[in-house]
Amino acid sequence: MLNELKQRLTAEFVGTFFLLLAVVGSGIMAETLSTDVGLQLLANSFATAGALACLILTFGRVSGAHFNPVVTLWARLEGGLSNRIAVFYVIAQVAGGILGVIAANIMFDLDAVHWSTKDRSDPALWFSEVIATFGLLMVIIGVVRSRKDHWVALSVAAYIGGAYFFTSSTSFANPAVTVARTFSDTFAGIAPASAPMFVACQLVGCLAAVGVMRITHPK
Amino acid sequence: MLNELKQRLTAEFVGTFFLLLAVVGSGIMAETLSTDVGLQLLANSFATAGALACLILTFGRVSGAHFNPVVTLWARLEGGLSNRIAVFYVIAQVAGGILGVIAANIMFDLDAVHWSTKDRSDPALWFSEVIATFGLLMVIIGVVRSRKDHWVALSVAAYIGGAYFFTSSTSFANPAVTVARTFSDTFAGIAPASAPMFVACQLVGCLAAVGVMRITHPK
Amino acid sequence: MLNELKQRLTAEFVGTFFLLLAVVGSGIMAETLSTDVGLQLLANSFATAGALACLILTFGRVSGAHFNPVVTLWARLEGGLSNRIAVFYVIAQVAGGILGVIAANIMFDLDAVHWSTKDRSDPALWFSEVIATFGLLMVIIGVVRSRKDHWVALSVAAYIGGAYFFTSSTSFANPAVTVARTFSDTFAGIAPASAPMFVACQLVGCLAAVGVMRITHPK
Amino acid sequence: MLNELKQRLTAEFVGTFFLLLAVVGSGIMAETLSTDVGLQLLANSFATAGALACLILTFGRVSGAHFNPVVTLWARLEGGLSNRIAVFYVIAQVAGGILGVIAANIMFDLDAVHWSTKDRSDPALWFSEVIATFGLLMVIIGVVRSRKDHWVALSVAAYIGGAYFFTSSTSFANPAVTVARTFSDTFAGIAPASAPMFVACQLVGCLAAVGVMRITHPK
Repeated sequence: MLNELKQRLTAEFVGTFFLLLAVVGSGIMAETLSTDVGLQLLANSFATAGALACLILTFGRVSGAHFNPVVTLWARLEGGLSNRIAVFYVIAQVAGGILGVIAANIMFDLDAVHWSTKDRSDPALWFSEVIATFGLLMVIIGVVRSRKDHWVALSVAAYIGGAYFFTSSTSFANPAVTVARTFSDTFAGIAPASAPMFVACQLVGCLAAVGVMRITHPK
Repeated sequence: MLNELKQRLTAEFVGTFFLLLAVVGSGIMAETLSTDVGLQLLANSFATAGALACLILTFGRVSGAHFNPVVTLWARLEGGLSNRIAVFYVIAQVAGGILGVIAANIMFDLDAVHWSTKDRSDPALWFSEVIATFGLLMVIIGVVRSRKDHWVALSVAAYIGGAYFFTSSTSFANPAVTVARTFSDTFAGIAPASAPMFVACQLVGCLAAVGVMRITHPK
Repeated sequence: MLNELKQRLTAEFVGTFFLLLAVVGSGIMAETLSTDVGLQLLANSFATAGALACLILTFGRVSGAHFNPVVTLWARLEGGLSNRIAVFYVIAQVAGGILGVIAANIMFDLDAVHWSTKDRSDPALWFSEVIATFGLLMVIIGVVRSRKDHWVALSVAAYIGGAYFFTSSTSFANPAVTVARTFSDTFAGIAPASAPMFVACQLVGCLAAVGVMRITHPK
Repeated sequence: MLNELKQRLTAEFVGTFFLLLAVVGSGIMAETLSTDVGLQLLANSFATAGALACLILTFGRVSGAHFNPVVTLWARLEGGLSNRIAVFYVIAQVAGGILGVIAANIMFDLDAVHWSTKDRSDPALWFSEVIATFGLLMVIIGVVRSRKDHWVALSVAAYIGGAYFFTSSTSFANPAVTVARTFSDTFAGIAPASAPMFVACQLVGCLAAVGVMRITHPK
């Protein structure tokens, strides 16, 4: 039992570590190599989608491959997780994510921690985060409830890969990702002051999706 | 029964909402970030393909994931749908699509509705829409009839992702998409005056595909 | 019997039509929209891979989705096809391919036929075509013999998508494609005088692959 | 028995040949066609991912499709391979890889062998190689142990495709690839003097992954 919990939390920790490494690392690489911001975002999106696909395939059967507190919140609401384990999940995700960003900074020869100065405070961006998180949960709930478990990885990768471009906030859609991205003053960063509102909007988007999916995909 | 109809129409509405959000949103993002139009279309295509893949996987088992009146027309011709339900499907698709465009406009801090001024009236473009819609229906009918249901999502995403580049009209291939894209004066927009001829060409392409696929994929 | 042949030949015709439409059409679109030749090839490659994936999924169960005389040659060597049907296949492929190029030209408002002036005559390119075709047949034979039929489409799309960049000739690897691409003086064109040597190299690459795969994947 | 060994070694040889052809060839093509280094890396990454996906699908059932001495090391540690066969695997991989680079050089009309002068010696890059190889083994072990064999090819392709961007060293993560890439003074090259440290870091990353995956994915 304890062993199984250790397994699951390690999976959430390592998975979110690599997810943030991918998000922040590819952002740094892209802005270093290219002058076209559209191309930077395309590379960032391509790398993030690739990471998500392989990480979910790698850890799905161990922990469910949440890597995201709002996904854990959904699992909790569904009764698939106790309160205690849900809290552990979120801690593992945030810790893994922060360490992933620090690793990215180090890999690219930057200070291990450098708070982001990128302001992302705007009602349009907040609306975008609500929509982005709604969509992410919609896809996860829909594909899982359709019993297409083998396709969850590709679905989430396709969704986030696309949503980097089709939402104005570039779809953080993940509170652990949001917190972790305050630790790097690079392409994918977000100023600490902008983070709480993003997280709030993500919670709203998550709950809205849970509600709507009760219509289309009842248990 | 009524409940099931509500499920299916909600699926068509939300799915088409996100499809248009993706098409128009990624177009705005791309033209904002990049100066190379080829790269703008690549990003637009990449994001649209990602959205299509995950949306079809999400809603396929609920409503068939048409998101497109000509697909609903094919289902009607096949007898898979009554006239009444087909009409409801189309209404849900158009309404969802328009709201998706409005949401994209708002997310990017533009007026909620701004009629497109992008003229797309030219015999070459009309021919392109016939071909584009022919190809889309050909792929859907062929893959469905080959009983590869799990691969429909990837097939449609691969087709449209490619067709954005290989047709001169960038493959609208969908009347609901065409109508909805008149609501945004941005990258993916189409002037209202150009829309009816596009829709007519899409109907022609659809019927031609239904005919040809009777040869290669009889029931 | 006759009916089944009609089915199969129609599939080869329509499939190769769309393959060439995609190859040539996306090349025209890319060179129209972008100034960076690397980006043009990336778009061309992305669109071709998308088309291949969905076309093979669409027509695989009907005709085998060859769309390529050297694939038909392999099927013939394996005994999966009579001489007569193999010849019909090749005719359908070449005819479909040429019409696909003509359709691409018309869609982009060019002359229906305009012989390519793009010289592609160089020993390095010939070597490249041998390697490119070797690789394509290697992938097809290997995946088919491994009984992963559902993955043939993705495998071929991934191979050709990559090979556009990793071979110096951009991987024609297909005699029908080679002949058809002489009909358009655009990005993907090839001068008629360069075509025969390309076809010869493709035959060499095909036969070499058939030989090597007898070691790794005996029947 | 001997026959089966020949099969497996041929698969490792030909597969690694094509992998290096893809890595080095697409790098040359990209730097020839484009001036944007970000786009060059995107093309390089796209082509490498495509090659990995189709090569693993082609040779997976014959040899396991290692194409990488650290993957063979893992298989050895697991007891899936004798010492003797493991050594043969590594020889086949290195030989295939070197010949693949030579073929790429020839295809692009360069000297068959031209030692790379690209210095890649920096603690940040070494750290990056440890992480990159850790991640690659993590994905392979996780997906294989989850019994998702059909998804290994896509997982590895998605991982490496992303990791080209999200690690500062562009993820060699493979000693055979590292050695082979010293043979070409082009985009993907690495100076011979930089290679040993890369290989050492890859071994460290491999062993670390084997250790961590014992927690999350015990046999």
